[in-house]
Amino acid sequence: MIEDAIKAFRKGKPVLIYDFDDREGETDIAIPALSVEPEDVAMMRIDGGGLICVSIPFSAAEKLGLPFMHDILSFSARMFPQLERIAHFDISYDSRSSFSLWVNHRDTYTGITDVDRSLTIRKVGEAVKSVLSGEDFDFGREFRSPGHVAILKASQKLVYERVGQTELSIAIAELAGITPAVAICEMLDDKSGRALSKEDAMKYAAEYDIPFVEGREVVEYYKKRAEELKIRV
Amino acid sequence: MIEDAIKAFRKGKPVLIYDFDDREGETDIAIPALSVEPEDVAMMRIDGGGLICVSIPFSAAEKLGLPFMHDILSFSARMFPQLERIAHFDISYDSRSSFSLWVNHRDTYTGITDVDRSLTIRKVGEAVKSVLSGEDFDFGREFRSPGHVAILKASQKLVYERVGQTELSIAIAELAGITPAVAICEMLDDKSGRALSKEDAMKYAAEYDIPFVEGREVVEYYKKRAEELKIRV
Repeated sequence: MIEDAIKAFRKGKPVLIYDFDDREGETDIAIPALSVEPEDVAMMRIDGGGLICVSIPFSAAEKLGLPFMHDILSFSARMFPQLERIAHFDISYDSRSSFSLWVNHRDTYTGITDVDRSLTIRKVGEAVKSVLSGEDFDFGREFRSPGHVAILKASQKLVYERVGQTELSIAIAELAGITPAVAICEMLDDKSGRALSKEDAMKYAAEYDIPFVEGREVVEYYKKRAEELKIRV
Repeated sequence: MIEDAIKAFRKGKPVLIYDFDDREGETDIAIPALSVEPEDVAMMRIDGGGLICVSIPFSAAEKLGLPFMHDILSFSARMFPQLERIAHFDISYDSRSSFSLWVNHRDTYTGITDVDRSLTIRKVGEAVKSVLSGEDFDFGREFRSPGHVAILKASQKLVYERVGQTELSIAIAELAGITPAVAICEMLDDKSGRALSKEDAMKYAAEYDIPFVEGREVVEYYKKRAEELKIRV
């Protein structure tokens, strides 16, 4: 199914990514950022229901001047002392969060509508494309923060370091050879109040003909390809 | 209708708050934080569709050590220079955003499910109740950031200074005499990709028997009551 996911990404189409039974146990809807239209934001919020975020690679975030929010809060504790304890991280399934800034493109109005969020997401995709092509990009000229779309910054060694949906979505984009900026949103279950079960996410995938992949497949395939291509340590 | 809204808040029930035609032109679902259950989070994300946030008064945020995100980013520009420009605010209808931190209660798992977000919201309500009763509250012991629920910090002079849904929801809570911590979520329109129209929000309110109030009514009533009670300059 990983090859179907790669093909879907090449066409700018959605993929469902389940992480691991022993991690979040969550499925995210993932769509290449450059292809996100207002209808895609509506689909993510209606059929997903979680936060609508955009994953970008570590290197692109560094070039754009986007730190991890954790590092911003830790530094800011010099001015706002309580932040030190609030930023202390203690979740059981991971060593840290991939949140960077929450942003709006400056051409948005409130920032929250489907039209506005899709614009912000596409423009983040364009920003990533620019800096990865070696161009300069003035992020503050085009975006303001705080805003309504969270940027997720993948870990530096990608799936060799962390295997959250942030890294998995970027890994699939790299395998597809597309601009590695991917809108993702968690799928929630209206009835149980918890994450949508893997079984229900697979049913949704089958119903709408969307490829469904698991973290395990993505990581195995990525490492195999990386070794073949020697694109990564 | 403002009196119906006050009564609903006293019962822990939802209210729809429309701001102003010449401001965001948006309706938010608003529910007293202490009453928010998983079904309420599901209702906000399904029938609303925007970000699920919790408004708290300026004074409570100060006591809890919660700065505006804008101030955090501005200070952090000393370490991360690009943040200076990204934090530069230029929206047409307001002078600044009320975003503070995005948080999860430490007893949540991923933080995003209806069960988790409702816990975070109720616990923020309890934190506000504690500090407004003069008790100490160690926010960092109970919450971590970054997380999945945005705290919105009302302006210091409330509706005398800013009239966003953050301030309007806190004004109604104060008028109701309940703990002033209110979960709010913007109502979006699936078809147009824009904010739900005032007319459609009013239809929804009538269908579900939820009071609908406009910013103008809230501000007028609040100022009149404040003058009578001399509770505010």
